[in-house]
Amino acid sequence: MTHRIAVIAGDGIGTEVIPEGLRALEAAAKRFNIDLDCQTFEFGSCDYYLEHGKMLPDDWFEQLKDFDALFYGAVGWPEKVPDHISLWGSLLQFRRQFDQYINLRPCKLMPGIKSPLAGRQPGDIDFYVVRENTEGEYSSVGGKMFEGTDREVVIQDTVMTRTGIDRVLKYAFDLAQTRPRKKLTSATKSNGISITMPYWDERVEAMAKGYPEIAVDKFHIDILTANFVLHPDWFDVVVGSNLFGDILSDLGPACTGTIGIAPSANINPEGKFPSLFEPVHGSAPDIAGKGIANPIGQIWSGAMMLEHLGHQEAADAMLKAIEAVLASGDQGVLTPDVGGQGTTESLGRAIAEKI
Amino acid sequence: MTHRIAVIAGDGIGTEVIPEGLRALEAAAKRFNIDLDCQTFEFGSCDYYLEHGKMLPDDWFEQLKDFDALFYGAVGWPEKVPDHISLWGSLLQFRRQFDQYINLRPCKLMPGIKSPLAGRQPGDIDFYVVRENTEGEYSSVGGKMFEGTDREVVIQDTVMTRTGIDRVLKYAFDLAQTRPRKKLTSATKSNGISITMPYWDERVEAMAKGYPEIAVDKFHIDILTANFVLHPDWFDVVVGSNLFGDILSDLGPACTGTIGIAPSANINPEGKFPSLFEPVHGSAPDIAGKGIANPIGQIWSGAMMLEHLGHQEAADAMLKAIEAVLASGDQGVLTPDVGGQGTTESLGRAIAEKI
Ligand SMILES: CC(C)[C@H](C(=O)O)[C@@H](O)C(=O)O
Ligand SMILES: CC(C)[C@H](C(=O)O)[C@@H](O)C(=O)O
Repeated sequence: MTHRIAVIAGDGIGTEVIPEGLRALEAAAKRFNIDLDCQTFEFGSCDYYLEHGKMLPDDWFEQLKDFDALFYGAVGWPEKVPDHISLWGSLLQFRRQFDQYINLRPCKLMPGIKSPLAGRQPGDIDFYVVRENTEGEYSSVGGKMFEGTDREVVIQDTVMTRTGIDRVLKYAFDLAQTRPRKKLTSATKSNGISITMPYWDERVEAMAKGYPEIAVDKFHIDILTANFVLHPDWFDVVVGSNLFGDILSDLGPACTGTIGIAPSANINPEGKFPSLFEPVHGSAPDIAGKGIANPIGQIWSGAMMLEHLGHQEAADAMLKAIEAVLASGDQGVLTPDVGGQGTTESLGRAIAEKI
Repeated sequence: MTHRIAVIAGDGIGTEVIPEGLRALEAAAKRFNIDLDCQTFEFGSCDYYLEHGKMLPDDWFEQLKDFDALFYGAVGWPEKVPDHISLWGSLLQFRRQFDQYINLRPCKLMPGIKSPLAGRQPGDIDFYVVRENTEGEYSSVGGKMFEGTDREVVIQDTVMTRTGIDRVLKYAFDLAQTRPRKKLTSATKSNGISITMPYWDERVEAMAKGYPEIAVDKFHIDILTANFVLHPDWFDVVVGSNLFGDILSDLGPACTGTIGIAPSANINPEGKFPSLFEPVHGSAPDIAGKGIANPIGQIWSGAMMLEHLGHQEAADAMLKAIEAVLASGDQGVLTPDVGGQGTTESLGRAIAEKI
């Protein structure tokens, strides 16, 4: 059985880490006898926008919908195209149109990586952020009035549906079931955001009734970010709205040393549409073109993709290879962000060889 | 000239730290010959709600509006009253009705306090969060539809006005002017929140034109929280919307060791209405009644109040006393959260004596 993978590198360091992601995937495919058919697409980048006046061709949905997965780099280059145009024109389209309503992001302190938190060792930080990925604060409803005057006002609606909340909660509770600690933390802000967030809390309570073996707690997002820093060991599975999940899944990886290595999966659990796998980091215009971007986020995203496609063993091997190369501390191989003098390519090659 | 201060202790540890805040204020008033007339109010607590069915009497505005300042503990006790009712019925009313549109929160690593961030020393972290305090994501517009069905949907409007944004930006830029580094960081999320946040960015750019000597940058809130952990030394004055400011002003103090000691000022800069001074921490039902709450957040808020009332010298003396007692490391005096075996009272007395 062949898995058809659409590859979209996007902008900036996206174009640099994608080749290393593919190198590692090929190594894993070879070792575990997996048949991957990767097809590269040029659209979904700011350069494409500058040429075509849009981020994606009109028939992107048709072109991509029958792939088994999307392997995605990073998009955005504010000097070329404003972020809200490039992102809403690409990544956020995929998430919404392909109903990738789960954004799953592991936060794990890896061997060889120094946490910015004092005294934390690998094993101390190991949790998942499960983020709602299609609705909530990322809304397309709203507008501006009294433009150009002192009365100018902008309004944007946060929209949450029972369907949207319940399905992400179900996924998070199910995930918590598979974990030894069986713990779920809900991110809320029902003391300040007085309409949507109390509703979110209600749905968490309702869902919890069906999972009596899960220990459930909740924190307001302000103190929750504080607790990520003060008590990262408290967390097992953390579930949040689109915005809160976004924040927590950058902060969590930062607590594990570098967001350069964090992966993510945008999942349509029913498999009706392709899921999308991408590093948490962005296109990083500041270091683009230098060949020093850390490719681990991309490679690890590839591992999540193989897991999603049913190849758990291959995914484990990829993760072990990442851990082994990080633990080696080999300065000539590691990229500068993790203390080495190596390049995107040297690190990518070392991991592919280990696989 | 007498300063009339309304004192509202609220719930939980609010009632425990307020007396120590007052003790320190009295000491400072005595030493610097300041005439403070403090009047205590029972309303604004969940117990008041249980008795009266509301958090505040109908004439609270009349009762409080002529005070020079409000000295406020903490409110909320979810087992008695849901948070969104207790908070919207009290603190959030004050902020909005008294047009306290600035929420100012220093994040400063103090001597004797261990930062959870590896290798950070006092002096490394020293910035202000300036938070918009009356509009934005904390909105009272929205509702629920299709209740009780699978189609159930909740909507809440984020509302931002040019007036509301510009005045908080102006305050933040003015504050940055007074600081040696003259640096301002704006919290945004214009890549995902595509209507309100690009507008916020626009207003920042417009305001920046009037302050050519200020170095301005912006980060999306997700990576900004990561940078608080990875590079807290980057920041000088950070300005954000109501929600983003809320998050950053818990996370910032967490990076400085304990949110138990962080103060805040809710300011109406024009002095048309009283400003409100309160610790960043909440009512902490889990440790309430044990007499171990750290009173420094309350005392430091008192210092901010004296500064606001024009008594800079007295405010400085209070802050120095806090620093001296913290630096002493006296286990018998310090509360457990900062490594001692003392009580709220022992720590409060020690600071008052130093003043
Ligand atoms: C209690 C809550 C409503 C409040 C807020 O979110 O503003 C608090 O977190 C704060 O920061 O003062
Ligand atoms: C680029 C941006 C729109 C995106 C988001 O906010 O979802 C990114 O931060 C992410 O987390 O994938």
